[in-house]
Amino acid sequence: MRKVMIADAMRFMEDCLKAVGCAAKAAEQQAQLLIQADRYGHPSHGLNRLEMYVNEISSGSCMPNNKPKVLRETASTAWIDANNVLGATASHYAMDVAINKAKETGVAWVTVKGSNHNGMVGFWAQKAANKGLIGMAFTNTSPLLAPTRSKQSALGTNPIAVVAPAAQGESFYLDMATTAVAVGKIEMQRKKGEPLPAGWAQGPDGRETRDAKLAFRTGCLMPLGGREETSGYKGFGLAAMVELFCGISSGSNYGHHIRSWTHSGEGEPANLGHCFVVIDPECFAPGFRERLADSILHWRQLAPTDPELPVLAPGDKEKAAAAEADAKGTISYVRQQIESSAALAKRLKVKPMEVEME
Amino acid sequence: MRKVMIADAMRFMEDCLKAVGCAAKAAEQQAQLLIQADRYGHPSHGLNRLEMYVNEISSGSCMPNNKPKVLRETASTAWIDANNVLGATASHYAMDVAINKAKETGVAWVTVKGSNHNGMVGFWAQKAANKGLIGMAFTNTSPLLAPTRSKQSALGTNPIAVVAPAAQGESFYLDMATTAVAVGKIEMQRKKGEPLPAGWAQGPDGRETRDAKLAFRTGCLMPLGGREETSGYKGFGLAAMVELFCGISSGSNYGHHIRSWTHSGEGEPANLGHCFVVIDPECFAPGFRERLADSILHWRQLAPTDPELPVLAPGDKEKAAAAEADAKGTISYVRQQIESSAALAKRLKVKPMEVEME
Repeated sequence: MRKVMIADAMRFMEDCLKAVGCAAKAAEQQAQLLIQADRYGHPSHGLNRLEMYVNEISSGSCMPNNKPKVLRETASTAWIDANNVLGATASHYAMDVAINKAKETGVAWVTVKGSNHNGMVGFWAQKAANKGLIGMAFTNTSPLLAPTRSKQSALGTNPIAVVAPAAQGESFYLDMATTAVAVGKIEMQRKKGEPLPAGWAQGPDGRETRDAKLAFRTGCLMPLGGREETSGYKGFGLAAMVELFCGISSGSNYGHHIRSWTHSGEGEPANLGHCFVVIDPECFAPGFRERLADSILHWRQLAPTDPELPVLAPGDKEKAAAAEADAKGTISYVRQQIESSAALAKRLKVKPMEVEME
Repeated sequence: MRKVMIADAMRFMEDCLKAVGCAAKAAEQQAQLLIQADRYGHPSHGLNRLEMYVNEISSGSCMPNNKPKVLRETASTAWIDANNVLGATASHYAMDVAINKAKETGVAWVTVKGSNHNGMVGFWAQKAANKGLIGMAFTNTSPLLAPTRSKQSALGTNPIAVVAPAAQGESFYLDMATTAVAVGKIEMQRKKGEPLPAGWAQGPDGRETRDAKLAFRTGCLMPLGGREETSGYKGFGLAAMVELFCGISSGSNYGHHIRSWTHSGEGEPANLGHCFVVIDPECFAPGFRERLADSILHWRQLAPTDPELPVLAPGDKEKAAAAEADAKGTISYVRQQIESSAALAKRLKVKPMEVEME
């Protein structure tokens, strides 16, 4: 592993995005999203994604300096055209609309079309939680999930995020792909040259595979729950629900109509769909934050099956990773990531990151 | 298997509920909920639950003739006290409030405290879909789910339901426990005297068990996703999310504070929490129903891994079961169910169901 100062990784991401023509604010917001993923211990959604965004901008398939706009709205809903900006720009815009509406009416439901990949969706739910609200975020993505019984993919890894503030400095943080794992985890296994655990992905024959390269090439992840006998159809149903909220509601591309996952960034605009929901817990029973903190503290003290492995509340891993990164002031990256970032710096004529061995 | 005319099963359920003092409308609504579960091929949530409701009424822990009321509301939210009525009464009341608000503002978020078990939650989401809206329903339940790494249960099977209308006579119907399976399925395996499939439940040592009796006695179901290696923490996270929407928001009992699962109906009122969400798809892009139908039809024609097992859209199993029951006009029950219903008829001095051998 190699380490990079958080501030320098942030600077590098912004420089790369600006080098391909992205305005300063959009570059900063996209970099904040990627740094958060790296700090939270989800490297698949951090610096690892930068080159894809850069490629989408330089190929013209993403237009980072456009402006999103509201197409239709009620007191509690909005339908937004992201106008092909970066996912971070679109998501900040839409989440701001949702937060303002929820403050007025107690709940807001916002759908977005014409967008691009919006990273670790927990970031967007967190934005509402930072204002004392319950935030939810969903996005569709390129087809990679094979529905139960299917040899072919038909839906994305379609994540669900819910973040809510609790008393005693606690918070509830759930951010999960509706596949057994996010595609980034398959990529990371492939980069590390390690086999896949059971229940993650299918080969071209529709049966489970442990070969990360084959799984990445096949592009058929198993839904949460795995095979039919272990209720994989529920994960498929959840991924379909996310698509219903995102592309099917917003009129963006959806499901099998979304372009294949591409690193090169070439082709038509992605035209992805997102959905953001904000709820004001003050509209319901007093004491929400206290009950949530009581629950979180209760889960952590449950008797563990293995005394070495304490029970974790949703988000505990992410918070521990962020605390560690912040204490050191650095983020650790695998060698291949550092090498591909150095190559990107060269290509874009941007100052490379300063890297130290760990 | 034994069969009973649908109308006679319905009559029997209403008679039993009326025999313990339930007013006619509340009895009818509760019976409709149970019959729907039996028709949909989910016998665990049908006639199988009747005796529990009867016991809760006769013990005084449920007050079926009370009236629910709105405690606090905005244009798009409501906080409701079910006032300890039957789950069906509370859920009809709350879903009507949500539907009316969503028609005005495009979305409604309603939480309910002071309620009882509200059955197959897809029924409530369906109620909104019947009006051309997207319906969602959630409920908390007695602790039965063991969080990842825990030897103890701390959350219920906390189901999620989403139902939405589509073009071409199609609809999206998802109704799933956030455990790998609902507790009713463990009960049915126990009644049939059959072992459990892998990944369903833990024994008292926190390890997986295949023994239905031991699993039922232990009361520690595994979350959707199974063990930690196969992302069971996501199912735990979803169950926790449902609790956040239900008990933690509504101020009902929640998580580990909910009484143990009981068939006898004795003890304090259950004070369960529900959450109902309704969204008007007309607030977003035109063509929602067509895109949803296109998706459903696409999923069904995907190349199957096993040519004998076609890919199903969420809800296809339920619709096929209902079509079969309706064509025959009868519902099939296992012998043990018929016997316990006959005993209940005797105890309540109600005319038993007319049963035919299949």
